[in-house]
Amino acid sequence: MNPHETRLRVRYFEVDPQGVVHHSVYLHYLELGRTEMLRDAGVPYSEVERHGVRLVVTEARVRFVAGARYDDVLVVRTRLERVTRVRVFLAYDVVREGGGEIVCTASTTLAALAADGRPTGIPGAMAAALRAAAGR
Amino acid sequence: MNPHETRLRVRYFEVDPQGVVHHSVYLHYLELGRTEMLRDAGVPYSEVERHGVRLVVTEARVRFVAGARYDDVLVVRTRLERVTRVRVFLAYDVVREGGGEIVCTASTTLAALAADGRPTGIPGAMAAALRAAAGR
Amino acid sequence: MNPHETRLRVRYFEVDPQGVVHHSVYLHYLELGRTEMLRDAGVPYSEVERHGVRLVVTEARVRFVAGARYDDVLVVRTRLERVTRVRVFLAYDVVREGGGEIVCTASTTLAALAADGRPTGIPGAMAAALRAAAGR
Amino acid sequence: MNPHETRLRVRYFEVDPQGVVHHSVYLHYLELGRTEMLRDAGVPYSEVERHGVRLVVTEARVRFVAGARYDDVLVVRTRLERVTRVRVFLAYDVVREGGGEIVCTASTTLAALAADGRPTGIPGAMAAALRAAAGR
Repeated sequence: MNPHETRLRVRYFEVDPQGVVHHSVYLHYLELGRTEMLRDAGVPYSEVERHGVRLVVTEARVRFVAGARYDDVLVVRTRLERVTRVRVFLAYDVVREGGGEIVCTASTTLAALAADGRPTGIPGAMAAALRAAAGR
Repeated sequence: MNPHETRLRVRYFEVDPQGVVHHSVYLHYLELGRTEMLRDAGVPYSEVERHGVRLVVTEARVRFVAGARYDDVLVVRTRLERVTRVRVFLAYDVVREGGGEIVCTASTTLAALAADGRPTGIPGAMAAALRAAAGR
Repeated sequence: MNPHETRLRVRYFEVDPQGVVHHSVYLHYLELGRTEMLRDAGVPYSEVERHGVRLVVTEARVRFVAGARYDDVLVVRTRLERVTRVRVFLAYDVVREGGGEIVCTASTTLAALAADGRPTGIPGAMAAALRAAAGR
Repeated sequence: MNPHETRLRVRYFEVDPQGVVHHSVYLHYLELGRTEMLRDAGVPYSEVERHGVRLVVTEARVRFVAGARYDDVLVVRTRLERVTRVRVFLAYDVVREGGGEIVCTASTTLAALAADGRPTGIPGAMAAALRAAAGR
């Protein structure tokens, strides 16, 4: 049940006048973590959209624990908490590579929308792939 | 006890391939809401930083209720929930101008850091101004 | 032949670790300038896309002359240089409100794409509206 | 005299409602290309700033040739055109991995600023490292 890990390096324009990554950028990092998890589970998100289903974030909760700086290497650890018929619940830690200091912890809820914008079920193949990946 | 209101128009690059504002952008809108509230309370944030104090977001919770589209006019309603010695708690609704449909609800916690990066008390003048503004 | 003017205030997250607006953000400001010019010319860009035509930037040239800071009020002055059958050429100055110091000068070339992604002519109504607006 | 190459994958939020990377994002990609070139030349930009020198982009010229889509892998090819006492001139091609289709071509001019914001000479170590890297 190890979390999925995505490694990234902080880009210059992501850093704010305080010298640390702007808090909004962590939502980009979380998105990167979960789309890479989907890819590694065999269900790239670009495929999902090609089948007419869009995943939308319906809720996000983020705790900003420490500042990350330009050029820091961060690891996004993404864990599948739960998949229901209509929701995916994910949890994340963003840690600094090396010491492993926690920079940010978060959770998000995702829902699926059909092409017409209406809620639909989480695609079965995606749910199965996520569960398999999470159970590794 | 009316909330502070900031009006903005959705910019083109803020919209994602799904045709709606990317969820990360709401953290920008909330920041705009609270910095405009500070300005209207007589304590522009640029002044705060000039006095060597930085406000950082330590926690954010956001519910994404409906999609906003390019050119939509949105109103960020910001309410002061509470100011303690070391924290400011704010709550927000982002609504579509016109019907007033809720697009997003959120809450954030802010803390103050001194120039050396260590936690410090919320500046007294800011706390007083916020309380006065919230009591209007 | 006065340029169209759009006023904006620099947002916190647009500023980089150097304390000035990140150079990439000026492309957002220029987009804002030209879409507001289109709106004031009676052809809002959201309308253009609803008619199945997309305008794309095919070339941009930007000179970054001075740094803009958080909370600065800037004015984007947009001028129509030329409209051909398939291209719109615009020029811009971004100046600091007050003294009018030039922060950035730029030019962009736009082309129109049909819904299928192929080049198409600049919509006649848009060309006429732009010419009328430019001739005011 | 091979160009330096940096590989990146298009992130979801970088894509606009037209389904292609927003043109402003290419300035982020170019920045990534040149900072990775500096790193590989042995002069990471974070080091440069620690020595009190900031590099600023004074001019950028970008031609947007083709649209890049979500999940595309792009390669930024960065070439040193020239280093003078006070300027660095770089040129770039952004190509799609695989076929090598050109997505964007660009050039930028950089200048150095001292801690007080005044122009200064390009640091000698950086100029030497860049020339050595370019001559490889």
